[in-house]
Amino acid sequence: MSQILVVGSLAYDSIKTPVGAVNRALGGSANYFSVAASLLSPVRVVGVVGSDYSSEDKKTLEKRDVDLTGMTVKPGQTFHWSGFYDDNLNEAQTLATDLNVFADFDPVLPPSYHDSKFVFLANIDPVLQAKVLDQVQKPVYTGMDTMNYWIQSKRADLLKVLSRVQILLINEGESKMLTAEANAISASYQLLKMGPEAVVIKRGEYGVILNHKEKGLFILPAFPIPEVVDPTGAGDTFAGGFFGTLSQVGTKPRFEDLKKACFVGSALASFTVQDFGLKSLIAVTSETLNNRQKIYQNYLLIST
Amino acid sequence: MSQILVVGSLAYDSIKTPVGAVNRALGGSANYFSVAASLLSPVRVVGVVGSDYSSEDKKTLEKRDVDLTGMTVKPGQTFHWSGFYDDNLNEAQTLATDLNVFADFDPVLPPSYHDSKFVFLANIDPVLQAKVLDQVQKPVYTGMDTMNYWIQSKRADLLKVLSRVQILLINEGESKMLTAEANAISASYQLLKMGPEAVVIKRGEYGVILNHKEKGLFILPAFPIPEVVDPTGAGDTFAGGFFGTLSQVGTKPRFEDLKKACFVGSALASFTVQDFGLKSLIAVTSETLNNRQKIYQNYLLIST
Repeated sequence: MSQILVVGSLAYDSIKTPVGAVNRALGGSANYFSVAASLLSPVRVVGVVGSDYSSEDKKTLEKRDVDLTGMTVKPGQTFHWSGFYDDNLNEAQTLATDLNVFADFDPVLPPSYHDSKFVFLANIDPVLQAKVLDQVQKPVYTGMDTMNYWIQSKRADLLKVLSRVQILLINEGESKMLTAEANAISASYQLLKMGPEAVVIKRGEYGVILNHKEKGLFILPAFPIPEVVDPTGAGDTFAGGFFGTLSQVGTKPRFEDLKKACFVGSALASFTVQDFGLKSLIAVTSETLNNRQKIYQNYLLIST
Repeated sequence: MSQILVVGSLAYDSIKTPVGAVNRALGGSANYFSVAASLLSPVRVVGVVGSDYSSEDKKTLEKRDVDLTGMTVKPGQTFHWSGFYDDNLNEAQTLATDLNVFADFDPVLPPSYHDSKFVFLANIDPVLQAKVLDQVQKPVYTGMDTMNYWIQSKRADLLKVLSRVQILLINEGESKMLTAEANAISASYQLLKMGPEAVVIKRGEYGVILNHKEKGLFILPAFPIPEVVDPTGAGDTFAGGFFGTLSQVGTKPRFEDLKKACFVGSALASFTVQDFGLKSLIAVTSETLNNRQKIYQNYLLIST
């Protein structure tokens, strides 16, 4: 079991969906990732919060043995995202992005993080993603996410980081935007040409595509959820389950490990969408996760 | 191996997609269904064509040992559909529906069809679907498809047929329309309450959901195709592969048979979308189908 390093946002989210709404709920990619991954493996967080970040919210990670040495508290407000979903729960509509203390975020790793073996660069400025990579001495496996904003505004920097990581996790819509392809399968092949040895395309309720340079495709449908309350954080939860699984193995992942990682990541993401924010994910135990995995496996079983 | 009866359209389609276009290509649900199913099991067709229907197009089915005793030729033009797809290949945009001889279609089964064991009612007027069911003596397994037009204009008749069949095969969008649900999983449960013992929701490039009243869910992603040329007929091809597989078993299908049928149906549908109209599907042999199934199986394999 190795240490996973994650860099990403620690945030408050105000979210409206067809089912209801929450105001300033704990969120941000690093929180979703860490809560998910810490069920499986130790996690180290790099991030920044404002002086309004409550000690209770900090405890959400501390209670789970997540290392917060790399979390800085700055004067000012914590990053705040506000958005809504209509009936198409696969796509968030942003109302406001208040970067606040996140605007000047400069990720400096504490020395104790330098030996991290698994590294996930959540969706932040690619220049900062690169800066984090620079500070890790000998990672075993590194991955990144990104979004439309960086694809449009910092494409060159983004492509540079992409050529340095082993795996890209990206939403279907953004995979098409980055490659100018209309088809997700075809986008996955184009993305492999940009450097990483594997790519996971996240398709929301439809599941994921894993494409590996040497081993080819693996297609996994999502765990079926009849009522999606709030899809926020599902992708970062997936990433947490994904890297948590790889870190449990500890060595450079084989194709089978990547498949298993997709499976566990999807199982965990299915909890996240069942309630607002982190509420449902926080309540997951090893036992409830194992049970869900068994049911999930049954939904997929076929003898042909 | 039993005989499958299919009732549906025999048509000419004019189709435009981002990749190209065809004019008056052979199409219609009964043609796609029969070409697919006849790779696996004998098929009987009920349908109507106009005097313009070419003898070569008739031979497309005859060469495959499809029984055309129930195909009537009427004075006038064959059913003609014209439509296009934009980059969202999951949804067709209709330009014109010229019913022609199909407008007065009155399906009367030849006596030799009355003992059919497997029956598929493709997407036609639910009143006609019921009329076909009335004429089959002791079917083992019956299924139907439908579309937005019938859901809106003949809902009561549609619900009556739905309560008489064992399985509904329906597009995701139409499953939501029929049930007023925003979520496909939830729609599948609502559809089971309307009568059938199983339902398959077809999600285009994302695959299918099978929900069985007693056995629960099975989720299958589509066979990945990097360049979709023309998705027309994919759903009817799926249905043909589905019923062809069930008919090979011959007895009332078990849950495992339904899963296998989804798998074979999806494999066949993946050929259909690779070229315009029936072009790619017609070229499929038992060998190319088996090869694709092996590759498909590999894309899905996971040991957890």
